[in-house]
Amino acid sequence: MNDGGLGETAATAIENDGSSRSRRTGRSSGRRGKRAGRQNGFTQPAWKTIVNPYAPAEVLNPEQIERIHDASLTILEEIGMDFLLPEAREILDKAGADVTPGSERVRFDRSMILEAIANAPSEFTLHARNPERHLPMGGRNFITSMVASAPNCSDTDRGRRVGNQVDFRNFVRLGQKLNIIHMFGGYPVEPVDLPPATRHLDCLSDFITMGDKVFHAYSLGRERNLDALEMVRIGRGLTESELDQQPSLLTIINTSSPLRLDNPMLTGIIEMARRNQAVVITPFTLSGAMAPVTLAGALAQQNAEALAGLAFAQIVRPGAPVMYGGFTSNVDMKSGAPAFGTPEYIKTAQIGGQLARRYGIPYRSSNVNASNCVDAQAAYESVFALWGAVTGHTNLLKHGAGWLEGGLCASFEKVILDADLLQMVAAYLEPLEVSDASLGLDAVRDVGPGGHFFGTEHTQARYEKAFYAPILSDWRNFESWEEAGSETATQRANRVFKQLIQEYEAPYLDPATAEELAEFVSKRKEEGGVPTDF
Amino acid sequence: MNDGGLGETAATAIENDGSSRSRRTGRSSGRRGKRAGRQNGFTQPAWKTIVNPYAPAEVLNPEQIERIHDASLTILEEIGMDFLLPEAREILDKAGADVTPGSERVRFDRSMILEAIANAPSEFTLHARNPERHLPMGGRNFITSMVASAPNCSDTDRGRRVGNQVDFRNFVRLGQKLNIIHMFGGYPVEPVDLPPATRHLDCLSDFITMGDKVFHAYSLGRERNLDALEMVRIGRGLTESELDQQPSLLTIINTSSPLRLDNPMLTGIIEMARRNQAVVITPFTLSGAMAPVTLAGALAQQNAEALAGLAFAQIVRPGAPVMYGGFTSNVDMKSGAPAFGTPEYIKTAQIGGQLARRYGIPYRSSNVNASNCVDAQAAYESVFALWGAVTGHTNLLKHGAGWLEGGLCASFEKVILDADLLQMVAAYLEPLEVSDASLGLDAVRDVGPGGHFFGTEHTQARYEKAFYAPILSDWRNFESWEEAGSETATQRANRVFKQLIQEYEAPYLDPATAEELAEFVSKRKEEGGVPTDF
Repeated sequence: MNDGGLGETAATAIENDGSSRSRRTGRSSGRRGKRAGRQNGFTQPAWKTIVNPYAPAEVLNPEQIERIHDASLTILEEIGMDFLLPEAREILDKAGADVTPGSERVRFDRSMILEAIANAPSEFTLHARNPERHLPMGGRNFITSMVASAPNCSDTDRGRRVGNQVDFRNFVRLGQKLNIIHMFGGYPVEPVDLPPATRHLDCLSDFITMGDKVFHAYSLGRERNLDALEMVRIGRGLTESELDQQPSLLTIINTSSPLRLDNPMLTGIIEMARRNQAVVITPFTLSGAMAPVTLAGALAQQNAEALAGLAFAQIVRPGAPVMYGGFTSNVDMKSGAPAFGTPEYIKTAQIGGQLARRYGIPYRSSNVNASNCVDAQAAYESVFALWGAVTGHTNLLKHGAGWLEGGLCASFEKVILDADLLQMVAAYLEPLEVSDASLGLDAVRDVGPGGHFFGTEHTQARYEKAFYAPILSDWRNFESWEEAGSETATQRANRVFKQLIQEYEAPYLDPATAEELAEFVSKRKEEGGVPTDF
Repeated sequence: MNDGGLGETAATAIENDGSSRSRRTGRSSGRRGKRAGRQNGFTQPAWKTIVNPYAPAEVLNPEQIERIHDASLTILEEIGMDFLLPEAREILDKAGADVTPGSERVRFDRSMILEAIANAPSEFTLHARNPERHLPMGGRNFITSMVASAPNCSDTDRGRRVGNQVDFRNFVRLGQKLNIIHMFGGYPVEPVDLPPATRHLDCLSDFITMGDKVFHAYSLGRERNLDALEMVRIGRGLTESELDQQPSLLTIINTSSPLRLDNPMLTGIIEMARRNQAVVITPFTLSGAMAPVTLAGALAQQNAEALAGLAFAQIVRPGAPVMYGGFTSNVDMKSGAPAFGTPEYIKTAQIGGQLARRYGIPYRSSNVNASNCVDAQAAYESVFALWGAVTGHTNLLKHGAGWLEGGLCASFEKVILDADLLQMVAAYLEPLEVSDASLGLDAVRDVGPGGHFFGTEHTQARYEKAFYAPILSDWRNFESWEEAGSETATQRANRVFKQLIQEYEAPYLDPATAEELAEFVSKRKEEGGVPTDF
């Protein structure tokens, strides 16, 4: 794990030589939108958003879904939820909820919940500063995002370390470079070497200047939300009212399960929904710990918490873009450790989708695993998670590339592994063509029994684009593979991530915009940033 | 790869000390049928066959399936297939097929094909010598089998070597020991140190004496088929006519794609179908090589070859148990190397299931990958293959545990990895209970906002069996995992496979049966075995 300093050298070199320069000068690559396929040696499919053409998995029958729905409304009616923020309770009181005086508890008539969420749009667009990167959310769309919120990061050259700005920026470079990654779902790794009061200014500035994709803003205090709204407005060159019409930011709201929403989360819902920005309500319901040990019970609680948050957002601003987040997994009952990519996870990811569709609200799930290194476990847990997410008709896949250790580490090699997995999912979701030409009876006739198709015209006309070309899979025979050094997929991923960071170029940013953004960041830093004691 | 001789020592010790002795003495373990859960330290779910409760994936719509169906019948009508065995052409000529005189080519009216396969049973039972191991085939049943037919094998202690009897027997021990493995689909590894003329006698004898599960007989010449039929009859203690009533053997018939069935395969269909034993017709249609480069074309050819073989088996004996085998994958068009577990593979596995259901014939698919070691690639390609197989409603999963290198190597570590994957699939296929008890509203009420579910009665009553307990997944935090040696899943699998071989005990076999079988093997060896020049 510590046998090379190359990673650091390369990363540092790029850091001093890449985005910072282009950000400061506003240098354009001049090739925006034309780049696909081979870029300085790395071949990838062109940027596109993904549509899932297949029917969703239905793990539960409609009656079972109704029982979970009904149980969750009973929870909200009889037990209620704690809303810690007084402002939130005032809003809910005015809207007709049962707010217990002198307490944080709020109970909801089921009709109140259902009427509120009926205002939620079933589809909406998230706007990027590059119009080619706008993202359709909901419906049959499958949108991916980078790993988010890991406190640590790792690569196999240098091992595991605490998050920092150099690594943060290299993850941003990878997320921008990889066409299969549609957006940033948060800080890939937390740059703890940056001061907490101004960290969000640096990170959001990096998202805007080093990338041109949609990004996420944390709800960790009102001032951070307001800064993010202003920065995305500047980055996109919008007026305030234009921003109100164009959802351009997304925030993840995690409930403090069981049945609580805390101050920064409620503030985030208020500030973001008020400005018509996307709010994703994701209960953190680990079955056996913060939720019942039974999956049905955990899902009922997930649904109650999600509906309460969604209803609150719709009460703040009817019609504001929202998403239903599913994150129910289980814990290892021997150790209490969270588990991901388990059989239980596949089911809850699929049932979460059924519930979200029950309400016509876009659905968020994740690409997760609990392995401590990029090994077979990391791979199989991730693909099981993708199985649940894809067949569950996830609209937004959080932690799409790079998650490790149940979220405690962002791995550079795992980014590449996951990019390959996601590219495979995208290829799988391409509908199969069944036509006279693709059935190819003439080719079968020409080749006949015992022949070979390699040389036929039917093959020659199609072979270059016939099949998915993987990033990592090595299909050589054993002898060739052994002679070349017996590399594992993880070792190959190590080479690829370093190559991609080297090849990264900052996307075009209008110099005036860059200057306005830099001035805003500078001004806010001079003001001292934001409170850190919320 | 060569840093330890332990594997060999352990394996040899067991070989000299385990099954051979118990086989010769007919020693009973005395605990047959009572063993489940923890056995000398290894915990696994009890033996059970698996039912898939979810709806199958429908990648193509019914019209598209009909187009492939129609194209395949056109292939059989206009192009035809080469049947190399004169006896087979005579049978088909009598049945009304268009057999070109002086040629191997046979063409079929579409009605002839459809009428013949209409006799195929949609479900049947494969009988083991232990009645608890009988296997329901077809319908919603999901039956798994061990890796088969690898010429090489490997473990990470000793690396890769050519197949041999010691390793063969250790794979048999693992396949017998693992409850998630329902049957043997062929020799896990080819024991090339055994003389070809009598190898099948030793291997089949091992299946019967070292295991009590259903097994497969190769169709590599009439005499081998007849020996296998006699040996399974002896092993099960049946009369000839009883065997005719009870399918107890399975044979895989691969077409020589494109559009050919060779002598041993046709002989195998004749001998096995004639005795009412299970015949699985599996075209080996690698898109871009032995089949069109388009998946639709490859599937049309797969379907044509499968229907021809299935129809032939039904003409030999109407109502004989058969299965529709799907094995369509793609090749790497740069190198010609076969690829497995690709996006293309998921689709063809699912569409193969749609076609098999179109005809009401049980479906066979596989757990495949093309990695050269047990790394992330081996894991993700395998889970993608399982995704296709499971959602495609596979009834028989070939190569369920141990396949590596596109079938050129059987890996001991991969057996354990796959057993874990299959156990996870089985847990995923357990229907979720939605009831008042599982919804657990009382537990949610008791815990309330901000509480914890670990200590509740609802949790305490259920936690031991609430979630799948993995073989390999390590969910400890990074620090604990690192302190314990930073093992990968593959390193853990290495320990587990050796432990299981150590713990293996031969299942009970009636001494008289053992003696009769040994006498048959001895007599056939004295006779010189079988021809090897077919």
